[in-house]
Amino acid sequence: MIRIGIYGYGNLGRGVEAAILKNSDLSLVAVFTRRSPESLKIRTENVPVVHISEVENWKDKIDVMVLCGGSATDLPVQTPELSKMFNVVDSFDTHAKIPQHFENVDKAAREFKKTALISAGWDPGMFSINRLYASAVLPDGKDYTFWGKGVSQGHSDAIRRIDGVKDAKQYTIPKEEALELVRSGANPELTVRDKHLRECFVVAVDGADLEKIENEIKAMPNYFADYDTIVHFISEEELIKEHSGIAHGGFVIRSGKTGFNNENSHIIEYSLKLDSNPEFTASVIVSYARAVYRLAQENNFGCKTVFDIAPAYLSSMSSEEIRAHLL
Amino acid sequence: MIRIGIYGYGNLGRGVEAAILKNSDLSLVAVFTRRSPESLKIRTENVPVVHISEVENWKDKIDVMVLCGGSATDLPVQTPELSKMFNVVDSFDTHAKIPQHFENVDKAAREFKKTALISAGWDPGMFSINRLYASAVLPDGKDYTFWGKGVSQGHSDAIRRIDGVKDAKQYTIPKEEALELVRSGANPELTVRDKHLRECFVVAVDGADLEKIENEIKAMPNYFADYDTIVHFISEEELIKEHSGIAHGGFVIRSGKTGFNNENSHIIEYSLKLDSNPEFTASVIVSYARAVYRLAQENNFGCKTVFDIAPAYLSSMSSEEIRAHLL
Repeated sequence: MIRIGIYGYGNLGRGVEAAILKNSDLSLVAVFTRRSPESLKIRTENVPVVHISEVENWKDKIDVMVLCGGSATDLPVQTPELSKMFNVVDSFDTHAKIPQHFENVDKAAREFKKTALISAGWDPGMFSINRLYASAVLPDGKDYTFWGKGVSQGHSDAIRRIDGVKDAKQYTIPKEEALELVRSGANPELTVRDKHLRECFVVAVDGADLEKIENEIKAMPNYFADYDTIVHFISEEELIKEHSGIAHGGFVIRSGKTGFNNENSHIIEYSLKLDSNPEFTASVIVSYARAVYRLAQENNFGCKTVFDIAPAYLSSMSSEEIRAHLL
Repeated sequence: MIRIGIYGYGNLGRGVEAAILKNSDLSLVAVFTRRSPESLKIRTENVPVVHISEVENWKDKIDVMVLCGGSATDLPVQTPELSKMFNVVDSFDTHAKIPQHFENVDKAAREFKKTALISAGWDPGMFSINRLYASAVLPDGKDYTFWGKGVSQGHSDAIRRIDGVKDAKQYTIPKEEALELVRSGANPELTVRDKHLRECFVVAVDGADLEKIENEIKAMPNYFADYDTIVHFISEEELIKEHSGIAHGGFVIRSGKTGFNNENSHIIEYSLKLDSNPEFTASVIVSYARAVYRLAQENNFGCKTVFDIAPAYLSSMSSEEIRAHLL
């Protein structure tokens, strides 16, 4: 049994707890929280909830610590720190800051002879792997990533910061005509506006100037200005009832040419349709926890990403079994 | 530059030659044939065509030999033999015989300190990888592989062996309603008949009993008896004109459940739409030739499959580049 710890118990932490139960070779040994441990009720029986101040006492009782904090402020600090005591997996997803995060974690993990894997999940994660395989197989080509339909936390937060907004949810929606154009092998040049639509459901405070809010959303640089944006004002009840879903998904498509005269086109498409974004992310993380455990057993220390992990390490089956049944 | 040799120059060998031209870190150094070398005209300038009897003289001039023979009789002999002299890649695709082939190649490659990779391509190959990733991420689920639309060589050959048949092509076609059922997350139990349709285009010899041929096709065990099979009799001209395509493709779909009460469903779908089956297969093989070269440089010898190769080994980019641009 591979002994797993969960560090941080929000949506993702709960997803990891649920995912562990689906894998008979993994066992949850403790959940760590910065809240008061007594206040936290977890689902698995007979597993202790421990305050993070005591984490060092668990150094020899946990094979892989799964870090479930946020990418903005938690993981940049936690992953390097905990890499000094544990083999770790995180889901750091600020794409632009991955190189710096990698360096920080790699330094700590190497010094303390631990194995760390950062940025597990679906993007970064399964989508990244598919971008890599597809670009290696079809070097003369172009790839396209589409996200959605699903709620974007960052864009929802941006709307909530606007004066007069009480709450909001923003859906990122891939445009069907762009998907079809890419699938046709036309290798189109697509702007951000061509690829995605942004649909916003906004709860305004009483008496707020709705037109002003709508204009402010649509003009927001980076987040909305370059997109076709639709704004709906709805009641708080409707937002909670109709827009509390955690579904998400997306598409990675590469089209490329082969042949002496580029006479043949090929389309590689990978897509996800997820009822629960955090539970799927957690399921990916948990399979990489297995891989991290195995790498650590081989004294293969330092920071890794999904690119560095051979697929066989993710499976609970033996090499003989996967060759016989999955190849 | 990684120096590549091609062993066998049919459709696949030509595809490998074309794929090498798409990869600036790979260079074709020789093509080996059992035909008379003078009779064979290749596309790349200044590359020698050599008789297979002289292959041993090239031991130090080739980094990776790409084996382009057939799985029925060529590769079971050639891959173990050539693994004694070269690092090799093959596309052995008789699924049931992979474990035995692996053992034979592994023994030779280990003894002679070479790196071998078997069964590269798309199925086995990219489809296998996707079956593995998806089953590791969603262990409580079910996967489905659909092939087509494309010509199945084995089924076409089976028709050609029938008395009164001059030539034939058989298309394997996935049934749209089965695809949709799988994508719905219903986890259906599907028979072979539910999943694929078999459409046959047959050229009969003059005066042949067409009804007898059609019945014989439809009753053929394993190949057709368990399927909905459509038979068309056409002229030889039409067969050549309309059915000489080498397009293929397919789908690997896994649906699985997560959550403490299995409350959430997820669909992972990978699909290929290929203008040229042999050129795409060749493109996969060539990216694995790069991986084999790198493993050999690390003294990581023996037989491997796609499951044993970390994605990063396939890319011509450095680890820093792929982390910055693809993760």
